[in-house]
Amino acid sequence: MTETKYTYQQLFDFATQLFGKIGCSPADARTAGKVLLSADLRGVDSHGIARLSGYIRLWKAGRVNANPAINIIHQSPSTAVVDADAALGLVSAPYAMQLAMEKARTAGTGWVSVQNSNHFGIAGIHAMMALEEDMIGIAMTNASPLVAPTFSTERLLGTNPIAVAIPAGKQAAFVADMATTTAANGKLEILQRKNMSAPFGWIQDKDGKVSTNQHEVKNGGALLPLGGTREQGSHKGYALGSIVDIFSAILSGANYGPWVPPFVSFLPVAEDLPGKGIGHFFGAMRIDAFRPAEDFKKNMDQWIERFRNAKTIEGEECVLIPGDIERDMEQERMKNGIPLLAAVVKDISELAIEYDTDIKFN
Amino acid sequence: MTETKYTYQQLFDFATQLFGKIGCSPADARTAGKVLLSADLRGVDSHGIARLSGYIRLWKAGRVNANPAINIIHQSPSTAVVDADAALGLVSAPYAMQLAMEKARTAGTGWVSVQNSNHFGIAGIHAMMALEEDMIGIAMTNASPLVAPTFSTERLLGTNPIAVAIPAGKQAAFVADMATTTAANGKLEILQRKNMSAPFGWIQDKDGKVSTNQHEVKNGGALLPLGGTREQGSHKGYALGSIVDIFSAILSGANYGPWVPPFVSFLPVAEDLPGKGIGHFFGAMRIDAFRPAEDFKKNMDQWIERFRNAKTIEGEECVLIPGDIERDMEQERMKNGIPLLAAVVKDISELAIEYDTDIKFN
Repeated sequence: MTETKYTYQQLFDFATQLFGKIGCSPADARTAGKVLLSADLRGVDSHGIARLSGYIRLWKAGRVNANPAINIIHQSPSTAVVDADAALGLVSAPYAMQLAMEKARTAGTGWVSVQNSNHFGIAGIHAMMALEEDMIGIAMTNASPLVAPTFSTERLLGTNPIAVAIPAGKQAAFVADMATTTAANGKLEILQRKNMSAPFGWIQDKDGKVSTNQHEVKNGGALLPLGGTREQGSHKGYALGSIVDIFSAILSGANYGPWVPPFVSFLPVAEDLPGKGIGHFFGAMRIDAFRPAEDFKKNMDQWIERFRNAKTIEGEECVLIPGDIERDMEQERMKNGIPLLAAVVKDISELAIEYDTDIKFN
Repeated sequence: MTETKYTYQQLFDFATQLFGKIGCSPADARTAGKVLLSADLRGVDSHGIARLSGYIRLWKAGRVNANPAINIIHQSPSTAVVDADAALGLVSAPYAMQLAMEKARTAGTGWVSVQNSNHFGIAGIHAMMALEEDMIGIAMTNASPLVAPTFSTERLLGTNPIAVAIPAGKQAAFVADMATTTAANGKLEILQRKNMSAPFGWIQDKDGKVSTNQHEVKNGGALLPLGGTREQGSHKGYALGSIVDIFSAILSGANYGPWVPPFVSFLPVAEDLPGKGIGHFFGAMRIDAFRPAEDFKKNMDQWIERFRNAKTIEGEECVLIPGDIERDMEQERMKNGIPLLAAVVKDISELAIEYDTDIKFN
């Protein structure tokens, strides 16, 4: 597959300009561009610039509000519920995470559930905002139903990711960012593009049998919760995905389970929705609401060093700390550029023409 | 295997009396008895009365303090760190969970990290305390290192469970309680007793190869993080177990990773410990700090009904909601008694003689 490289700055400027063209304020457009591009930088190619046309289509379909009045509809010293007013999640998520951090500054921790939102890009980047203030950051979101609970043939949950960012001292931060499925949908899309079969435990067919056919989800199949099969703990992945759904949507008043509106604009939104839009959940815990941050960081450094230097199985260089791969990727791509597949370049070059942006592609 | 049934009341009275005999106050002894027996009631036989002699041995070894001065060493409106003063976790955990709920009453949420503690029984029972006040309850703990991180041959993490209890309306509460490994150690012990091999993905041998030999952990092997193998997402189970370790121990100042003191009294405690005892982490979120509890519960009921009535794969009766199995078991055992294996009866009958309790077993 042909790939072309673009600099971060080129793609950031393009995305930001495009968000401006659909009516986002300059500040919101920059925020959305930054969040979107963080996925490309960190190697989560499915959630970055490749998804830009999808967001634009949602806006065209009237499901994204480029000029939202994001609003706190309920709060306590350490909590809030935010109505995102159909904003891009790329915009409402940083707003809500900031609010969680603001709560944490005075109450020790802050917890914000968001209703009436849309896809928020990668979860990790929102959780990482907390690191700048020596806080632990947590971000999660529900998503279009693609995942079957254990024992079911129905798709009732999204890949519902959980991200947790934890500051360290000399060491880089611990940043976990994971779908609560065996594999994220983006990983499956890569196999589909490469025409490779799926590993055991990733998906099931329409009858609920584990399948290695990478196209099974389109034939009535489903992604499997982390664990894959009941014997290997899929009921735990199902429980985790459910917790994300409930924290993100039932605490906020968003749609949950099978009622979560699909990301793609060509699929219909269900009728009789129980809530508004999709839901997110954010948390911020100030380290020094528990212990002096310096003591905590010293222990984190020791933890990270001990794990990284653990004895490995033959053929593996070292034990990885959550976030290692994405951080290396970010440095590499910031320096050498972001590779885009020909199909993605075609997609954004059409956007560039349609919206007459300064940067054209090809 | 021969089993004898005892009533809940018999075993609760016995455990409570025994905790009194080693010096616990009447109130602490009752709390410890109740938490211990909740495991037997809910079908987690490895964590109940079968473990009583282990707690007593830890007390004999001077590692459990029957008369602790449990103490808040740091706090903010929504957080606290508790020094459990080497208490039984069966006692310090309910104390800390109460404190989290107290914080939640005024701040909306409460988060308590505990140092200098010991094994706390099953996580679920602590999380469930929050249900009585229309709060979401969260409980986690670190534990003796038995689990190898992805790519490692070393045992650096415990089975580090996460429990989340969420209230519903007409429906029973959602109660997830899961080790962050493919299977809890108690499940493996059952296979060892029955001389059955372990399913793929549960354990690895000393070289890090996945093994089905149920005795492999004793030969230098390890339990595997949820996911089992890298391809099936074990790095996610490893990240989850790590988060539990960090929240429980690095936020509190307890021991973490490979330094967590072993539960069994015959294994030595490592030297140069980085913290005190083992660590726990508790959270309580008041539902009405987000939304009116009635609205939340109505949505939870709809969520639960939709999932329970989802189409099943052939041969399965219904989709289970986290907590269903344990709740049914609790009702059954409360009515018909708790079955104990002959080895467990022998164990407690020796305790009954040694400490001259009112109830004898034989």
